[in-house]
Order: sequence, then C-alpha cells, then structure tokens
Amino acid sequence: MAIDLNCDMGEGFGVYNKGRDREVLDHVTSANIACGFHAGDSRLMKETVRMAAERNVAVGAHPGLPDLAGFGRRKMDITPEDAYDFVLYQTGALQAFAEAEGTRLQHVKPHGALYNTAAKDAELAQAIAEAVRDAGGMMLYGLAGSELLKAGKNAGLTVVSEVFADRLYQHDGTLTPRKEKGAVITDRDQALEQVRDMVLHQRVRTGEGTTIDIQADSVCVHGDNSEAVDFTRSIRKFLEDNDISMKAPDV
Amino acid sequence: MAIDLNCDMGEGFGVYNKGRDREVLDHVTSANIACGFHAGDSRLMKETVRMAAERNVAVGAHPGLPDLAGFGRRKMDITPEDAYDFVLYQTGALQAFAEAEGTRLQHVKPHGALYNTAAKDAELAQAIAEAVRDAGGMMLYGLAGSELLKAGKNAGLTVVSEVFADRLYQHDGTLTPRKEKGAVITDRDQALEQVRDMVLHQRVRTGEGTTIDIQADSVCVHGDNSEAVDFTRSIRKFLEDNDISMKAPDV
Amino acid sequence: MAIDLNCDMGEGFGVYNKGRDREVLDHVTSANIACGFHAGDSRLMKETVRMAAERNVAVGAHPGLPDLAGFGRRKMDITPEDAYDFVLYQTGALQAFAEAEGTRLQHVKPHGALYNTAAKDAELAQAIAEAVRDAGGMMLYGLAGSELLKAGKNAGLTVVSEVFADRLYQHDGTLTPRKEKGAVITDRDQALEQVRDMVLHQRVRTGEGTTIDIQADSVCVHGDNSEAVDFTRSIRKFLEDNDISMKAPDV
Amino acid sequence: MAIDLNCDMGEGFGVYNKGRDREVLDHVTSANIACGFHAGDSRLMKETVRMAAERNVAVGAHPGLPDLAGFGRRKMDITPEDAYDFVLYQTGALQAFAEAEGTRLQHVKPHGALYNTAAKDAELAQAIAEAVRDAGGMMLYGLAGSELLKAGKNAGLTVVSEVFADRLYQHDGTLTPRKEKGAVITDRDQALEQVRDMVLHQRVRTGEGTTIDIQADSVCVHGDNSEAVDFTRSIRKFLEDNDISMKAPDV
Repeated sequence: MAIDLNCDMGEGFGVYNKGRDREVLDHVTSANIACGFHAGDSRLMKETVRMAAERNVAVGAHPGLPDLAGFGRRKMDITPEDAYDFVLYQTGALQAFAEAEGTRLQHVKPHGALYNTAAKDAELAQAIAEAVRDAGGMMLYGLAGSELLKAGKNAGLTVVSEVFADRLYQHDGTLTPRKEKGAVITDRDQALEQVRDMVLHQRVRTGEGTTIDIQADSVCVHGDNSEAVDFTRSIRKFLEDNDISMKAPDV
Repeated sequence: MAIDLNCDMGEGFGVYNKGRDREVLDHVTSANIACGFHAGDSRLMKETVRMAAERNVAVGAHPGLPDLAGFGRRKMDITPEDAYDFVLYQTGALQAFAEAEGTRLQHVKPHGALYNTAAKDAELAQAIAEAVRDAGGMMLYGLAGSELLKAGKNAGLTVVSEVFADRLYQHDGTLTPRKEKGAVITDRDQALEQVRDMVLHQRVRTGEGTTIDIQADSVCVHGDNSEAVDFTRSIRKFLEDNDISMKAPDV
Repeated sequence: MAIDLNCDMGEGFGVYNKGRDREVLDHVTSANIACGFHAGDSRLMKETVRMAAERNVAVGAHPGLPDLAGFGRRKMDITPEDAYDFVLYQTGALQAFAEAEGTRLQHVKPHGALYNTAAKDAELAQAIAEAVRDAGGMMLYGLAGSELLKAGKNAGLTVVSEVFADRLYQHDGTLTPRKEKGAVITDRDQALEQVRDMVLHQRVRTGEGTTIDIQADSVCVHGDNSEAVDFTRSIRKFLEDNDISMKAPDV
Repeated sequence: MAIDLNCDMGEGFGVYNKGRDREVLDHVTSANIACGFHAGDSRLMKETVRMAAERNVAVGAHPGLPDLAGFGRRKMDITPEDAYDFVLYQTGALQAFAEAEGTRLQHVKPHGALYNTAAKDAELAQAIAEAVRDAGGMMLYGLAGSELLKAGKNAGLTVVSEVFADRLYQHDGTLTPRKEKGAVITDRDQALEQVRDMVLHQRVRTGEGTTIDIQADSVCVHGDNSEAVDFTRSIRKFLEDNDISMKAPDV
C-alpha cells in the first residue's frame, strides 16, 4: 500500500519568499513547482528543481494564470487556446530546468483558478490535457472526479487523482466551497481520519453525512507556514503508522 | 557556396503587432523567435513557430532581458547567473512549442542588450553558452568575433557568426556605434557590396578604410516595415545573382 | 445643440503603437487616455496628454484591468475593493501628467472588461464611482442606462451618458452582444442616422425594431485605423451638416 | 533639537509580505511608500498610507525602476526622460491615495538603483527633481551631499539630507561600497555613536579615520525583520536619551 504526497512550491518571486519549501520537501514525494505566471521566477525554478531532485522528490510543473498580482487565484475569462498556450509555455520552461538538473518532469498540475476552472469546464480541461500531451506526455494531476482527469484520460495521459486532507467533500464528489461553514477541516484528527478513509478505502464521508467513493492517488499537502509543515508531518507519520508508504505515482 | 539569412520575429505582444513576419519568412532561412521577456507571448510563439516550420525556415529562440517596456534594449545590471536563468527559461518555453509543432530548435540568438553585452562580457557570454548547452545544445548565433562565440565554442556548441549588411564595421571587428556618423549604411548598393565581400571573401571594408577578415556564416536581415522587407528581398536576389544559395547552417 | 465626441487613446506600450491618436485628436472633444494597466505607459501618457491639451481636447483617464497581455478585455474576477484601488491608482498617475502639462482631468471612463462589468454590477460600479470621487470628483463616463452611471450620480458625480454610432441596441437599452448577427453596424449611412436619432431626439431604433429613449451626452468614436478615422471624420461632418456643434460636456 | 527618522515601507506585492511596517511605524516620523514599480501595489499603497496617517507619520512616495523581479536594485540604462516619467507616474498614483485618505504627500525619495544613480548622475538627478516639482513640489529626500539634493535645490524644492546609522562613510562623503570590508556597521554602539555625531554635530568619522562634515536632516532606518525593528527602537531610545526629539522635517 502506497500513496503520493504532493505539495505546491517555488511560489515566491524575486526578493519575496513564500512557503517553507526546504522543510516540506523532507515529507513529500512529488513537488508542483510554480513556473513564473502566478508565482515563481527562473532562479527559483532552478533552485526548487535542484532541491527536489537532491531529495528524490519527483518534480512537476504547476502552471497558473498570468496574474502575479492575484497569485493566479482570480478567475480570468480565457479561451481554451489561451489555456493550451499558457500550460505549454510554462511546462516547457520548467522542463528545461529539470533537464539541466539531470531529471525530467514527472507531472503537471494546474494552479488556482486554472485548476478550479479546469475541474468543471470540459473544453478548458481538454486544452490543458492536450498541452501536457504536446509538452511530452507527463502525468496530469487533477481533482478527483474532475473534467480535467477525464480530459487527461482522453488525451492518453496517465492521470493522478488528487484528494485533500483538510477539505470537506460534497455528495457529488466536489469540494464544499470555502465560503461555506465547515469547508475547511480544522480538527486534525478528523482530517487524518479522512486521509485514512480515502487512501485505504477509497471513500470519504461528505458534509451531508453520506459516504461516497473517491479515487485517491495523491494527497495534497501544504508548506505555507510552520503549522502547515507540522500538519504535513502528522499526515506522513499517520500514514506510516498505518503501514502506508509514501511514493510518487508509478508511470 | 551557401549562406544563412536570419531574421528576428514574433516580436509583438498581446494585441500589438510588430514586423512583417509572414512576408519576411519567404526570404530567410532561419527565424529568431521572441520568447516573452522583451517581446512575444505564448500565442505568438506558437503561431510564429508554425509559420516558420511550414516554410521550412529553421526556428531558433531569441531570448531577451525581462523588460517588455524597453523591448530588451536597455542594459540592465544582471549577473551571469541571471543570464543563464533567463536564457534557459525562454529557450525551454520555445522548445515546447517547437516540439508541439513537430520541429526542434536549431539555434539560440540573444536579443538586444543581452546580445550586445554578451559580445563583450566574457562571464555573461559563458553563462549564456552554458544555458544553451543545458537547454539541449542548439547552435549559438552571435556577433562575428564576439566573446559570445568564443564562449559557445568553449561550451562545445556549434557557433554561427553573424554579420550585418547595413552596419559599418570598425577596424577591430566591432560595429561602429549607432550614434556615430555613417554607422548605418543607407546606400543600398554599398550594403549589397558589403554582403558580397563578407559572404564570398570573408572580409569587410571598415569605416577607417582598412579591410579586415570577418567570419560570415549568417546575414541578419530585418522585417520591421515594407522597406526592410524590400531590402531583404534585394539581398536575397543579389545573392542568387551571384550564385550564392540560401540555406540554414549545417549542423 | 452640442454633443461630445470621445475616443480612447494612448493605448500603445513601449515600442508598440496602436491607433492614430494624432489624426483622431483633430475630430474629437474628449480623449480617454490609457493609464498603464491594460495599455499605455508613463511616456505615452505624458505625450498623449500634451497632444490633447495642445488641441484643446479635454483629457480623461481610461483605467483598465491589470492585463496588458489581454488588453484589459478579459473579464477578471476582481472584488469591488480591487476596482476602487485600480481606478484610483491609474487616475492619480494620469492626473499628475495632466497637471504637469498645465491641465486637469475632465473625466474618467473605465476600459474594456472593467467598463462592461461596471455597466451591470452595481457593487463594482459603486466602487469605481467612489474611486473617481476620491480622485478629485471628475466626470464619470459610462454606458447609457448603466449601473455605472447610477452609481456615479449616487456618489455626487457629473455623469456622461455614452452612446455608440456603430453598435446595435437591444430593447432594454443594452448593446447587442458582439457575437450576435448585426451587432456591429457596418452600413455607414445607417450608423450616421443612428447618431442623429440619438443626439437630436435622444432615441434609438433597436434590433427588435422598436424605438427606445436613450440619453446621449457623448458619442464614442474610434481611431484604430484609417477606416476608423475616416468614419470619425464622417460623423463630425454629418453632425456639423445637421447644425450640431461638438464640445466637451459642461461641468 | 529634532531629527526625522524615515523608513521604506509598503514593499510587498500581491500575496507577498515584506517588512514589519506596522511595528516600525511606531518609531519613525516619515514613511517612504513603494508605488508599484519595484514593489507595492494599489491595495498595499492604500493600506500603508492609511496606517501611516493614523499614526501621524508623514507619507512620501518611494518610486523605483520598473523591475519587480529585481526589486528595483539592478541598474538599468534609462534616460533622464524615463526617470522623469517614472517618478511622476508613481508619485501621482500615491498622491491620489494620500488625498483619498485625507492627507498629502510630504516628500519623495527614490528607491534602490534609481536613488544610487541619481546620487551621482546630475542629469538623471535633475529629471527626478523636475518630476517632483511638477508633481506638486514635495520635499525631496536624497543622500547627503548627492547630485540629487543639488538638483532639488536648483528646482526650488526643499531637500532633506539623509544619513545612515549603519553604513560607513568615505572621506569624500559617499558611502563605502557594500562589497568592501566594514561597509556595514554591525556594532550597535558604534552605529549609535555615528548617529549622535551626525545629528548633534553634523559630522561623521570616515573609514579612512578622518572626520568630515555631513548634513543630517533625516536618519534612514529599516523594518525588514525583527532585528531591524529592534535596532530602530534602539536609535529612537538613544536619541531620546540624548534629548533629541523625533519629528518630520519642517516645510
């Protein structure tokens, strides 16, 4: 029994730092590295790839919308062709750093508003999947049950179904919107239990009280601050205690 | 007898157009495509690669300084490591579009202030050459006799020595600075004669009246406006009339 | 009888030109000048203010979304507070150039997606109106019948109701979306007739065949290319032939 | 006896924080607020102006080069006209926020490479001084003895001569370059002694061992981290202990 732990990183810019990448790299198996549109710059991309590679953490591209001021979180009314272009550009740029550091990109995981829109918008999802296919056919990470994963399969990609430890799920398999009460699970034990249910039994208890099936190939963790790193450490320890090993997805 | 004609292109941005790429592509054998820092965006990169590939024009990256407002022409006090990062990022991004369109990058030619600085600054030149080597080892275009070409050779790259039809040369092989009188050759016949001398005899008459040796592997032409395209057409015709064929450099 | 003719200008960036500002300035009475977010830069702002002031054309700010790559036309999911901040920043910047050139801003007219969203979204409209009030209380230009004009009145501003010569109106007073057939009036005589109806009789024939009331304080014209400038010239001549003079709005 | 303490602030961007503005505002009398080119954005400008105004700290513009990635620290080869445009644009934008918050800009202090270049380059200095004059004639902060202060006086501005607690001076009144040994004074007592000498006696001991005259109107302090804030607190206490009060410069 094995599971992948992935974390977004390299999300600083210029003189600005963000996230405790170095610490969290000790606990994850896959790293999603920002590529310069929503965050990240060429220096940081190189250094983050290097740090990940040194720790045998699989590297992936984390392309976002061209909105540094909004950290790629603001929905923008882009066309599917824009999405294709943005993903191909950013993935290509990071691939160059990966190869220069002696490795290759394992995967692509869209960021923020691009991720969220691609979870529901089939056309945008298809454009992103085609960009990943044309960029070399890396694995495609997406929300469990999303249009993005469907599009990835259609494009012939290996898809990785991502789940969240600390987010409440709805009966239809989508995440409870952040603005709703209880959307973020703050009780650590409850979050760990949710991880165990998802990883071991491929199911999750919803906000409505039902239990639904969920495909859990990778758990998304965070390194934003010391608390987040601590929680990541807890998840790792919990999984080990439950005889679940951590490893990047098999190709 | 054959020579390469190269032209910068894809230098618009968003709604902004620049240059008559479509027209000039009929006359050149190598295209240097902007990569989003000094000009160009992901859409334009894709379309320019496609147009070039359809016409069997060899595609290359044309990376610049991160200064869209200044079109990459303003000298910036960057470190050699910055130069490495900038070139690797941009070249990787364009390589992804090239591969998606079924081709590969033939070469890299730095733009504007990056090109000019790398002609004289050995450290910066070395950093750029290493970026090109790490990006896949494309050919490296640079000013004839420049530090950039020396660095390229040292890094094991095939270098392409670029000459200009309409720029006056100095006795030491450098270009007469634009602010000096006569720096730009406006007499078309004189420019064509200079091309012939450089291509056929690998020599050029300088502003001082001397004749010096010059390595001419590729002639840089322009497509900024109808006059520039017309001059490019003249050069092509002149070369053909002198039994010199146009072709991209041999690997 | 008098009417204002307004035109967007200063919408180039760096080396990029856009629009025939110099020509169109001879025909309009108010200029909406881009402020650096969707287009325009500090040099161009200064020069455009100067050109307008020399011709006694009233200057106004034309603030847009921070999306140079998309020319401010892509809807972005910004908050009302963002809209306030964006408009205040850009208007302040242009005001400085206006004062340095010996004039003052007459008005503010939002650009592109910001203009369109503010026409319908009352909260965003209010935020923009408050920014204009806090920036000095210039006139506020907006679509005839829009939420933006309502918000402007509520904020105590003088509002200017803008109409379009070449756009088809719907029965509810909104513009027929561009993707619908006939949305843009290409027949010049029909467009001129529409201008006359709006200016003289404050009414317009809709796509549904009905005639509705419309407040016409200013006609928006374009200077994108020679055809647009020519059409602007036609409108001006047509108005003069109908004894309607052109002047900026009275305060 | 009174002296001004000034600090750069509002130097974050989007989701990125930088500096302990809130803490350091309790100890300074003038705030130099970033304006969006090297750092800062419209939201942060508004909030920083508000925080400063609430604490009766005088607000000033801190305009930089258009180089967010390099934090405005990289020298760029701009023209004097560029400098004029950049300073006027940024100062105008911040002035709008100041006025909206019920205050006015007291001063302008250029940032980073713009500050350093203007200290030595008379033409650039003049352009900046003219921008400040045209933006409303605020006070101009600059390095003691610099070309910028000379240009400010020539332009009819009130100039404020800035000194540094923790930087070593050379015999000609310039700062010892950071790359030289001892350039930054790390001994706190030595730094405080230097402040006292400068403020009380308008003189400073140089690295060469000589003592030179220096005009000290304002001491620049930092709020980058807790150590910097702590040092700022020390300076304030030291000045108070020496019966020197802290206040913004008189107009």
